[in-house]
Amino acid sequence: MKLTLVGAGPGDPDLITVKGVRALQQADVVMYDALVHPDLLDYCRPDTLKVYVGKRRGAYSCVQEDINPLLVHYAQQYGHVVRLKGGDSFVFGRGYEEIEFARQHGIETVVIPGLSSSYAVPASAGVPLTTRGISESFWVVTGTTKAGQLSADLQLAAQSSATVVVLMGMHKLADIMAVFANCGKSCTPVAIIQNGTLPEQQTAFGRVDTIVDQVAQQGIDNPAIIIIGDVSALGDPKRQAALSVLSVNS
Amino acid sequence: MKLTLVGAGPGDPDLITVKGVRALQQADVVMYDALVHPDLLDYCRPDTLKVYVGKRRGAYSCVQEDINPLLVHYAQQYGHVVRLKGGDSFVFGRGYEEIEFARQHGIETVVIPGLSSSYAVPASAGVPLTTRGISESFWVVTGTTKAGQLSADLQLAAQSSATVVVLMGMHKLADIMAVFANCGKSCTPVAIIQNGTLPEQQTAFGRVDTIVDQVAQQGIDNPAIIIIGDVSALGDPKRQAALSVLSVNS
Repeated sequence: MKLTLVGAGPGDPDLITVKGVRALQQADVVMYDALVHPDLLDYCRPDTLKVYVGKRRGAYSCVQEDINPLLVHYAQQYGHVVRLKGGDSFVFGRGYEEIEFARQHGIETVVIPGLSSSYAVPASAGVPLTTRGISESFWVVTGTTKAGQLSADLQLAAQSSATVVVLMGMHKLADIMAVFANCGKSCTPVAIIQNGTLPEQQTAFGRVDTIVDQVAQQGIDNPAIIIIGDVSALGDPKRQAALSVLSVNS
Repeated sequence: MKLTLVGAGPGDPDLITVKGVRALQQADVVMYDALVHPDLLDYCRPDTLKVYVGKRRGAYSCVQEDINPLLVHYAQQYGHVVRLKGGDSFVFGRGYEEIEFARQHGIETVVIPGLSSSYAVPASAGVPLTTRGISESFWVVTGTTKAGQLSADLQLAAQSSATVVVLMGMHKLADIMAVFANCGKSCTPVAIIQNGTLPEQQTAFGRVDTIVDQVAQQGIDNPAIIIIGDVSALGDPKRQAALSVLSVNS
């Protein structure tokens, strides 16, 4: 009996690790989420049981409390279960809860990290979370807490000099921007990236006081990453164009 | 002419992405760092030129200002250069500087993110940076700034409720712990992981007021990751043993 937690990465199926691919090839059962790219299931053997336990869209929806006993059930019945989750499973992924539950039922556990969207999606849009002379730290916060409210950590993050990355925050975007505006950061650059690393990736580059309107105009929505801080401007295509002109003229 | 920045991941060569492997297979030149696992170079064609530009150990040592023109030189002479860096190249990796420099010389650039040690190394030691009810955010800071001093962000991070991850901070460990102790966090759990994800991985689990002695006793040194916050205790083998007993008795 074995449970292997595999992070599938931010979207692009080629951003899974070699180790993650190997686990999929050996799986007796794969339990996968809504954000996992369907191509990844092709790495499995034809006889691998594939179980969808996504929490959004579609008719069947699982809550965490249903998933934990299912993991144990499949491990006991079939042997090696691979739990395939979008991004990394230890970064807001609730993977630790699954590992703990499985361990308490005597199941061997292995964790194979995946690319977390928190920095890999910004990178795919040309935004480095840290850069010499601009930002020397980054803070990753969730927009959605257990209680459904803004995380208290966001208040602190807004006062800091860190690049702030908000995951799962699009439904609270206006509230989040208000927190930063109240800290005197109305003009701070903001980038928003939807479907990062996928062909349908969409980006908006603006400022704390403009981004809500821009996003509405462009129709950008979940799943998206919010980046607040001066580095956000580095990925702006308008800035890139300006740089190219500069480089041609120099 | 093309420059592809590839993150090699935290150590274990199987933690590179499928996309990263493909880039290595297509490279005319690979420029790689000290922290890159040598097995990764086996993905290259036999005729690929392999250039070591590590910044530590060994006779030849490159500074960033040397690397940038070298990248351009090799791209102009050979075609496709893969720049292979440990971890992720946009997280304290100075990758953005290389991308900018290449772009200004008319070279096409592509970024393939890698697993950042900041969360992948903690995961490999059983430490999730966030977990419901314990921590709902994490802050990644460098221990080494351009000026060689402690980052000012560390002072703020110590006052926050975030899990704090310090990269490249072992030479300042006592100073960093003093910052947290001064914020009333002497008893906060700390984990330190050297050579994370490699067979020679070593860990120390303690508290802000004990970890400096523990690390000295165990002989743990760079390259290591420092994790400060309650989640650090989750990876402690002593706690795991206690949990197992609990589970057997329940």
